[in-house]
Amino acid sequence: MSFNSFGHVLRVTTWGESHGPAIGAVIDGCPPGLALSEADIQPWLDKRRPGSSRYTTQRRETDQVRIFSGTFQGRTTGTPISLVIENQDQRSKDYSDVANVYRPGHADYTYDAKYGFRDWRGGGRSSARETAARVAAGAIARLIVPEVRIHAYLVELGGDPIDRSAFDAEQIAVNPFHCPDAAAAERWEQAVDAVRKAGSSLGAVVECSAEGVPAGWGAPVYAKLDGDLAGAMMSINAAKGVEIGDGFAAARLRGEDNADRMRSGPTFLSNHAGGILGGISSGQPVVVRVAFKPTSSILTPVQTIGRDGNETEIVTKGRHDPCVGIRAVPVVEAMMALVLADQKLLHRAQCG
Amino acid sequence: MSFNSFGHVLRVTTWGESHGPAIGAVIDGCPPGLALSEADIQPWLDKRRPGSSRYTTQRRETDQVRIFSGTFQGRTTGTPISLVIENQDQRSKDYSDVANVYRPGHADYTYDAKYGFRDWRGGGRSSARETAARVAAGAIARLIVPEVRIHAYLVELGGDPIDRSAFDAEQIAVNPFHCPDAAAAERWEQAVDAVRKAGSSLGAVVECSAEGVPAGWGAPVYAKLDGDLAGAMMSINAAKGVEIGDGFAAARLRGEDNADRMRSGPTFLSNHAGGILGGISSGQPVVVRVAFKPTSSILTPVQTIGRDGNETEIVTKGRHDPCVGIRAVPVVEAMMALVLADQKLLHRAQCG
Amino acid sequence: MSFNSFGHVLRVTTWGESHGPAIGAVIDGCPPGLALSEADIQPWLDKRRPGSSRYTTQRRETDQVRIFSGTFQGRTTGTPISLVIENQDQRSKDYSDVANVYRPGHADYTYDAKYGFRDWRGGGRSSARETAARVAAGAIARLIVPEVRIHAYLVELGGDPIDRSAFDAEQIAVNPFHCPDAAAAERWEQAVDAVRKAGSSLGAVVECSAEGVPAGWGAPVYAKLDGDLAGAMMSINAAKGVEIGDGFAAARLRGEDNADRMRSGPTFLSNHAGGILGGISSGQPVVVRVAFKPTSSILTPVQTIGRDGNETEIVTKGRHDPCVGIRAVPVVEAMMALVLADQKLLHRAQCG
Amino acid sequence: MSFNSFGHVLRVTTWGESHGPAIGAVIDGCPPGLALSEADIQPWLDKRRPGSSRYTTQRRETDQVRIFSGTFQGRTTGTPISLVIENQDQRSKDYSDVANVYRPGHADYTYDAKYGFRDWRGGGRSSARETAARVAAGAIARLIVPEVRIHAYLVELGGDPIDRSAFDAEQIAVNPFHCPDAAAAERWEQAVDAVRKAGSSLGAVVECSAEGVPAGWGAPVYAKLDGDLAGAMMSINAAKGVEIGDGFAAARLRGEDNADRMRSGPTFLSNHAGGILGGISSGQPVVVRVAFKPTSSILTPVQTIGRDGNETEIVTKGRHDPCVGIRAVPVVEAMMALVLADQKLLHRAQCG
Repeated sequence: MSFNSFGHVLRVTTWGESHGPAIGAVIDGCPPGLALSEADIQPWLDKRRPGSSRYTTQRRETDQVRIFSGTFQGRTTGTPISLVIENQDQRSKDYSDVANVYRPGHADYTYDAKYGFRDWRGGGRSSARETAARVAAGAIARLIVPEVRIHAYLVELGGDPIDRSAFDAEQIAVNPFHCPDAAAAERWEQAVDAVRKAGSSLGAVVECSAEGVPAGWGAPVYAKLDGDLAGAMMSINAAKGVEIGDGFAAARLRGEDNADRMRSGPTFLSNHAGGILGGISSGQPVVVRVAFKPTSSILTPVQTIGRDGNETEIVTKGRHDPCVGIRAVPVVEAMMALVLADQKLLHRAQCG
Repeated sequence: MSFNSFGHVLRVTTWGESHGPAIGAVIDGCPPGLALSEADIQPWLDKRRPGSSRYTTQRRETDQVRIFSGTFQGRTTGTPISLVIENQDQRSKDYSDVANVYRPGHADYTYDAKYGFRDWRGGGRSSARETAARVAAGAIARLIVPEVRIHAYLVELGGDPIDRSAFDAEQIAVNPFHCPDAAAAERWEQAVDAVRKAGSSLGAVVECSAEGVPAGWGAPVYAKLDGDLAGAMMSINAAKGVEIGDGFAAARLRGEDNADRMRSGPTFLSNHAGGILGGISSGQPVVVRVAFKPTSSILTPVQTIGRDGNETEIVTKGRHDPCVGIRAVPVVEAMMALVLADQKLLHRAQCG
Repeated sequence: MSFNSFGHVLRVTTWGESHGPAIGAVIDGCPPGLALSEADIQPWLDKRRPGSSRYTTQRRETDQVRIFSGTFQGRTTGTPISLVIENQDQRSKDYSDVANVYRPGHADYTYDAKYGFRDWRGGGRSSARETAARVAAGAIARLIVPEVRIHAYLVELGGDPIDRSAFDAEQIAVNPFHCPDAAAAERWEQAVDAVRKAGSSLGAVVECSAEGVPAGWGAPVYAKLDGDLAGAMMSINAAKGVEIGDGFAAARLRGEDNADRMRSGPTFLSNHAGGILGGISSGQPVVVRVAFKPTSSILTPVQTIGRDGNETEIVTKGRHDPCVGIRAVPVVEAMMALVLADQKLLHRAQCG
Repeated sequence: MSFNSFGHVLRVTTWGESHGPAIGAVIDGCPPGLALSEADIQPWLDKRRPGSSRYTTQRRETDQVRIFSGTFQGRTTGTPISLVIENQDQRSKDYSDVANVYRPGHADYTYDAKYGFRDWRGGGRSSARETAARVAAGAIARLIVPEVRIHAYLVELGGDPIDRSAFDAEQIAVNPFHCPDAAAAERWEQAVDAVRKAGSSLGAVVECSAEGVPAGWGAPVYAKLDGDLAGAMMSINAAKGVEIGDGFAAARLRGEDNADRMRSGPTFLSNHAGGILGGISSGQPVVVRVAFKPTSSILTPVQTIGRDGNETEIVTKGRHDPCVGIRAVPVVEAMMALVLADQKLLHRAQCG
């Protein structure tokens, strides 16, 4: 990864600020000949789009993506694909009070410390709006790995986990929380309503599973599939933790309980490893979990300082997500798709 | 990160197999004029070296590092620094029974799936022996960030966490577990003794804190300091989870509890963020935790298959660590040092 | 360099086809705080723009650049700068006859061989139109190296070289050939008129000098300043040769004649080296020359084959430059600026 | 390319100084399963080795290469291949007089300007000894492109070119100049004898042809095959110019004379393009020429300054090549092999 690009041979570069004229992504290294139009990308953006339910920010963006290069007669040409999404509902005035005061838990202070000043409109480059560009890029990555089925969903919200025994994949698309446990979704509805009324916010844990990944993707030592996934997921706004397979729970198992036994096929009798051994896919589902902190954009006043160093308090008005983890679901899927597509091509480079 | 290199402008490439003639690292981009000799590196290798207590593998390696390039008259020249560590106690015969059978939880199967065959002696490139090269490289990285104090320690072993209220930094160097809680260290002694006798293994969680990191290191969006740390830590053998600051626990907090309030200075009233906001250091200690699974090299027989696909059982004899997390402590420190040094130089490139 | 990006820490990614909706560039790693608006970029694009004299293609493009990200209140923020230039005068029908026939000397056949098909409208990605994105990016690079003065000019056209003794820098801006020798410019006028009437084309050699580069930029061994320049210049459309300093002529000198003697200052008594020794700038002007072939888009019929493999002839109508080397002048300047800015930042990373 | 590494997916990192304990290379990304032992590498090193004729330096190095990693049972494993060549005949005292005086035309001054000090023994990292590591790496690259036949040879020495009509490939291995024209080789023998006696040196031009490269390797825009070759060749010590195909001579042709006509097959009626169109191989031989300056290590006294800035004269004693271009022949071949192998794998990544 470099400043604003990532990937080994499928390179994605994103650009754009929350309240600039547009955001976008350049996808370089895409195989030629794939059928691609805006219609392949738009549904994923719609899934991420704000304002789709009362559990997300009320900012209104149509998030219409345009392909500016890299396709011809409906197919990818092998040249860089430039995607552009205009920003529409910018309402910069909402943010004018954060120009000179640092929102605790935000990047306001660190951007100023690094660059000397910052685009304070809506968080500028640090806004989660950047993730729309990832989702658009991820839609293209999916076309490169048609053999893989990627599904992300919330497994915990506000500290309230799902009941694994009640896991029902069909529920994910039904409720606004991408929650596979109908009962949990109901509880979360109340929790999010309550926290929004209280002017606060909640964290969440997103799980993502990729089925159909063949054995052999990934590479030792610093291009490990799990290393790439960890870096990619931790780069998402508000992410604070990443697990592969059993993750932290694996550290509490004994060796014989954690090792996934093999039978001919090969099949595995369990998947504690999350589908990755030695940094290389095993053929089992690749499973990753990402922890998202509660957003710090809250109506509750908190102590902070201004650019001048003086102490003050801040209330972040604006229009914010009470639980950014909800809208992170398609972003996690996109990053999974991008890492897998990149590793597929990298594997093909070395091993044919 | 690429196959066997990582870093933006401080690039580290490691090479070597567990039972080849040697392992090593090439460190490229090191600033010139730093005082450097083998004596600056050896102590860190000694800390990682196997056979130092009965809680680690009994493989005997002196791990003497040699500098083959990049220094002159005791100082770095700015050219690549080549470090070589000879392998001595190779005993390849110990591993001959794993040549044709896959050890569950190991990279045996996935290397074969990827490359068609593998160096089965001691795990080849997938062996944790590779981490000696990281530790050696990390010793050089420390010279680049003399303003930073890095300390890693175990905070959980076999599911048994330390008592945070009993945290005593001076204990870390005293017990063989790098444990800051004396009482926990005693309990762990018994646990590791027991599990070794039982022919099994335990997982662990390593925490690493870097104090003295100034505000401003790291960069949006894909070169975030936390993203780089996550990728670097997850690339360590047996790592299955990475957290920054409160990590997964942050997902259970409310917004006002998670946001670290600021007072003039600036100072922060808490450090839930682990010293990183928006991917950029805040000036607080950078805190990361890494979960290590229990090694799958155990004496307990487990079901598996051979290269021929036939079902069988395997007992991994060899000389193995009952808890690889213990020896991961200096490796985590090395990766922290390498990421920070790289980000310091990258920050200097862009911001002067 | 990767597919469509280049630079170590100042990374430029360009995208876009000749007849797509737009072309553009993303500049990543730009230092923050530089004053930047479209007005800083537009003059360089105007210099490159087609249709500015009768010696260049009559395609009409206003080449208005728009900044989509990376600036705030008129200054760079340190985040990626997205530049977009709309394509206006596309006239795709002009090219319809090359859809199924390969133009000799063009990328038509090789794109098909690589990708299986191609965007044949105006050469698609292989069009020199891509260089507008370089020129725009180069304008930003100039802001990063204000200490450097970059000038490119033609030193040979159609095999007719300038008279070095008649070199007059003020002539460069006066004639349509960027030619420092007024007499040569007159001869070239006739030569280009003649070749255009004949439906043919001419080659040219562009020289570029960068004054004010301090000693110390560049780095061994594969990030040499001359190595980077060679790669960058050879990536320009129609480039077939690159020289540093005396270049091929140096191969005809004796050691004592080629070595630039030093006197205190330091000053050098000559500049055969072109300002680069061991891949690192010496403080003398950095001098590079680039040979451009005559374009193969000519009205003279030439033997070729079709996509079906059958033999035929082709006449390339369209609107083409009789000498692409003329319009390469600002492109060579841009690449010089980009390489120097990147190496300046890279030097700062390692050496402070 | 980065400081000391290059390649997209086949990454080569070299390290080592002229008079350190050893030099070496790490080759990362090599496909698995290739038969490889030291015997595959040694012949190429022997071809480059100094002291092989009276026309090269009399420094004696056996240049025995050792493989320290990346192979098992005689085949590449897909993990990094570490190659080490010990320095034997170091005679550092020969160079003690250049410790405080800058040799004109050498990197002495620029290294000091960049790094503040330098390893002055034999030029340190700037020594052509580094190229032994390239040749070793190139031997492995050749195994990745068995379909390609690479031959380099001198086409000009001291300004005296070969007669193309007398080109006889079998002569290349016969004379000490890798010269395909027997008559020229005789003339050069006298010229080099004379220049050595005079304490001076001569330049040369090396041409390299790669036959068997299929159409489709290379990629727009900044990973062009010719761009990569130019960067790679210009990174060789003493290189000052690079041409593809007709190179600078192409700039003197008219469009219809330069365009290589196509006939069914496809076949081409000429190869002015040097086998590359639009940055992508056409299936014709890939032809590159590299100009090497005369070495500045000469017995003729030349004006210079010391580290203290005072003016003085220098005579470079040591043991030097009267024409470094001669020994550059296998280095040029190695860089050609490395670029082609890398581009082959990169093409496979994107296009399967």
